[in-house]
Formats: sequence, structure tokens, C-alpha cells
Amino acid sequence: MSLLVVGSVAFDSVKTPFGEREEILGGSATYFSTAASYFTDVNLVAVVGEDFPEHDINFLKSRGINVEGLERQSGKTFRWKGEYGFQLNEANTLETHLNVFETFRPTIPQSYSNSEVVFLANIDPELQSEVLRQVNSPKIIACDTMNFWISGKRESLLNTLKSVDVLIINDGEARQLAMEANLVKAAGVIRSYGPKHVIVKRGEYGALMFNSKSVFAAPAYPLENVFDPTGAGDSFAGGFLGYLASTRNFTEASMRQAVIFGSVMASFVVEDFSLNRIRALDYEEILNRYREFKRLTHFEDAGDIFNR
Amino acid sequence: MSLLVVGSVAFDSVKTPFGEREEILGGSATYFSTAASYFTDVNLVAVVGEDFPEHDINFLKSRGINVEGLERQSGKTFRWKGEYGFQLNEANTLETHLNVFETFRPTIPQSYSNSEVVFLANIDPELQSEVLRQVNSPKIIACDTMNFWISGKRESLLNTLKSVDVLIINDGEARQLAMEANLVKAAGVIRSYGPKHVIVKRGEYGALMFNSKSVFAAPAYPLENVFDPTGAGDSFAGGFLGYLASTRNFTEASMRQAVIFGSVMASFVVEDFSLNRIRALDYEEILNRYREFKRLTHFEDAGDIFNR
Repeated sequence: MSLLVVGSVAFDSVKTPFGEREEILGGSATYFSTAASYFTDVNLVAVVGEDFPEHDINFLKSRGINVEGLERQSGKTFRWKGEYGFQLNEANTLETHLNVFETFRPTIPQSYSNSEVVFLANIDPELQSEVLRQVNSPKIIACDTMNFWISGKRESLLNTLKSVDVLIINDGEARQLAMEANLVKAAGVIRSYGPKHVIVKRGEYGALMFNSKSVFAAPAYPLENVFDPTGAGDSFAGGFLGYLASTRNFTEASMRQAVIFGSVMASFVVEDFSLNRIRALDYEEILNRYREFKRLTHFEDAGDIFNR
Repeated sequence: MSLLVVGSVAFDSVKTPFGEREEILGGSATYFSTAASYFTDVNLVAVVGEDFPEHDINFLKSRGINVEGLERQSGKTFRWKGEYGFQLNEANTLETHLNVFETFRPTIPQSYSNSEVVFLANIDPELQSEVLRQVNSPKIIACDTMNFWISGKRESLLNTLKSVDVLIINDGEARQLAMEANLVKAAGVIRSYGPKHVIVKRGEYGALMFNSKSVFAAPAYPLENVFDPTGAGDSFAGGFLGYLASTRNFTEASMRQAVIFGSVMASFVVEDFSLNRIRALDYEEILNRYREFKRLTHFEDAGDIFNR
């Protein structure tokens, strides 16, 4: 199945306790589509400025990503600058220059309009709704959002959520959106807004997936070297939806496997700056890390311990 | 196998966003031994004052806990007062009155000295070492500690750790003890101090167990109603060591099951104030929650997804 993503392509300047990089390739749609490209065909919609180099476009193409929807506008590409402390869980944003992203109105190319899986990355919820008006009944729609939209455009966001199947969101944002401190209850409140599945990302603590039938808890992969957490959430979403698009089924079992593939892609991306670690993974690396998640979480049944 | 615990018996005054209780039964040894009592025989060593009521001793006895080592001294029982915010992850201590606990020197009764499993709850590491001098080569020794001893009695603590098989510790404390921000590396540093297994408790995020062979990640049970997190860590340790003592084997597979039984007991204890929820569990409730942990974490193998 083909997978449509609408989001940002950006240049990031990032400082972590382990190093510093200026103007490296980033953006939600970039991380998402690169992670998803290992699983399925990806249709990218985003905007870049005149300064966006051909070699970065060629990289996306080399991953088999369809860039017909990557608009180039006069002006500069979106820039973000941030730093992380030793906890690495939350970025401190130092500068945001939206540049061409400020007036971005996503146009879905005709060739994308039958995409069966759609990911609305973290953009203005009004634009998210505009995207949905341009696609022909996708099989599954997922979206991300952030505190800025939850507090500033709550009504628009709730309107978008009515059409969304899977909300992928941070734990703090889930609490804020639901106005409820307990995460289990918060997920229930969010499901009442529309999404049948709520995936709560908890950084180094992994992810929880809630639906009407069950809760699934996935750990994050315990890494000795986390270099740069930028893009982890979008790479998670890319692995998650990329896998679902490739299996063409959305059963509980597939959704759980998809959460693990999302966690696998996130675990790779944080091992280096930018997309460096996921530019050229081989399939065996991805499968091996999946198997490591299996070993990481496996335990035997209890048996009949109280009747010995 | 018999299980020895040395720790505190206390009266707690606790305020959470959901209610408030004064002078309720608490203390590390109380939570630990009650949780462990569902699995094995427990030998308790602690101290109480003249004010400690007979009905609380009778409760411990009713759980089959051996209270021969529960000293009564002139003076008052240890009191702790604390409160939790909505995050519920860390208590803000308002008052600590050590009372009879201040001069506590644990004496291990002759009848306990062959205990095969030993838990040194969070007490002065010098007292922990004194306990170890009074027991005859136990099969497994586990201990807990806290920031106060890590910073104030580091040398004594390192000395105790040389004899310890399993350290059960909070994530912040693991980082502080190892002087290392990355948890995987921190666990490696701590293992170099002596413990073959390091269990890192992460509150609502579950626990990680590190040894030379593997890492095991266990989630916390996602509860809709967390009433009072007091005692969760000690109840975890009680379920963990209680199960190990009952199985009489310390293989990797048993240790992992033990982490889940620890998580099960912790998940019950936080559902009500004090020990209320674990005073009278039935075995089926415990096994059912273990099975829920299995459902919570289960996912299928990846299969041959890249060769379809």
C-alpha cells in the first residue's frame, strides 16, 4: 500500500552533551519518510526553499521516496535550533525560523490521491484537515500534534481528530489534550474524540498503544549511546505506518508488530545525528533489532506456582 | 526457601491528589514482607516502639510472617510524612521522625540465621553489612539503598555491595551511584561494584533488569487509579524475592518471572493507601494480573516481512 506523509523538511542545528551539528537535514516528513521507506512506497508532501540542495533531494529519491509533492518555493528552508541536556528526553528550542514553511498550504498531487495510508505530521490542524479533503478515502489515517496546537488551536485539532484513526502523541501532550493526569484515562478521553487507537510516546521509556480491546506496552531499546533524540518520534511513526502499509492488515497483532518496528526505527535514529544512522540500514539489521526487542521483553508463563 | 528481610516498620502520613491518611501502617520491611508472604515464609527483622499496636503485629502473623525478629523498644515507632503531586512518581518528604529506628542495630535471631534469601531494605549500609555478618552463607542477597546513603556513606555502601547479588534501585539513584547519565552504562558500572544483577525501578515506567547476559524490560501495569505510590518499590522487591525463594532457582528465566511478580505486587499496592490492597489478595488475583502483564507485552515474531 502507498503511504502519504505531509509534514516538514528542515535544517536543524542541534547541540547534545555528545556533540554539536549545524544545519543538518531534519524535519518531521524527512525522518518519517526515510524510516518508512524500508517497508513501503512513500509519497512525500512538504515545502523547501531555494537553498535546499539537490543532493538531499537525491538522497530521498535514492530511498525510493516519491518527491513529486515536495514543493520548492522562493525563500529559505525551515530552520530549527535546539539543545538537549543529559536527560535527552526533551529539547530546549533556541530558534525557530519557519521561512517557506510559514505559508505552506499542502497540495496533494493527483498521483498521490489514492494513498491508502496517510500520516499527518505535526503541522497546523487546519492544514491537516485540508489534506484529508484532498485524499480519496484512505484505509487508515494517523496524525501527530504538539502542545502549541493543543493550546492554540484546540477546536481545529478536535475537528481533525474526528477523522483520525491513530493519534501518535507524547505523554505530556496526551495529558494536556485530555486534561487528565492519568494516562489510561487520558487515552480513553482521546479515543472519545475520534481516534480508535492512541499511541503514547514516552521517549526513553517506550510507547503505549491503547484501543478498545487492550493496552500494549513496548519498551524503548536500552542504548549505551544515545547521540541525538531529534526525529525519534517521527521515525517511530514511519516504522509503525510503513510496516502497516506493507502488511496491508490492521489487526491487533499487526498493530503491535508495527509498534515494535516503529521502536526499532526510533532506536536507530537516535544513535547518530540527523538521519545518518538510517540512511542505509540493511534489512537484516532491522530484523535483528526486532528480535532483540523480543528477547528484551520475553518472559515465561507463571505456571501453577501456588500449587506446588 | 526462607526469606529474611531487615528494614523499617513505620507509621506514614500520606497526602496524594486523591486523599489523605494519617498514621497508617507502612515501612519498607512491612511492605516487603507482606508482598513476599504470598510466595514463601518470611523472617522479619525490624524495630517498633511502645506505641505499636498488637493488631498490626497480629496482621503480620496472619500473613504467616515470622515476627520473632521484630524488636519492641521504649520510645515511639518511626514516623514519616510525605505528599505526592499529580505525577505521583516522587514523594515530597515533609517530616521524618526516626524515633526508635535511630538507634536500631539489627540482631538476627538464631532461628533466622539459615535464611537462604536475604533482602536488605533501605537502611544504613553499615547496618546492612552487620546483618550479613550474622547470616550463614545465603544463596542470594539483594539490597536497596537511596540518595542519602549514596552521597553520605558511599564507601560503606560500596563495601556492602561487594557481597550483594542483586541491587534493586531507582533510576535516579542508579545514575547517582554510578556517576553516569546513561542507564545501560550505569548498570555496567554498578555491576563492577559487585552485584551480578541490577534492577532499575522506574515507577510508572516499569523496571529494567541488567546482568552479564541480557537486559529485561518490564512495563508497569497501566492503572486507571493510582491512589498512593508509597511502598511500591518494597512490594516489588517482596514479590521478586518471594517468587525466587519459592522457585528455589535463580536462572535467567526465573529472574524474569520474578520481575513480573514484583511488578504485579507493586501494581496492587498502589491501588489503595497503606497495605490495604495487599492485606488479603487471593492467588487467582495475583495469577490473573501476571497473565495481564503477558497480554500487555506480547507481540508476534517479525516473520519474513522483507521477502514477500
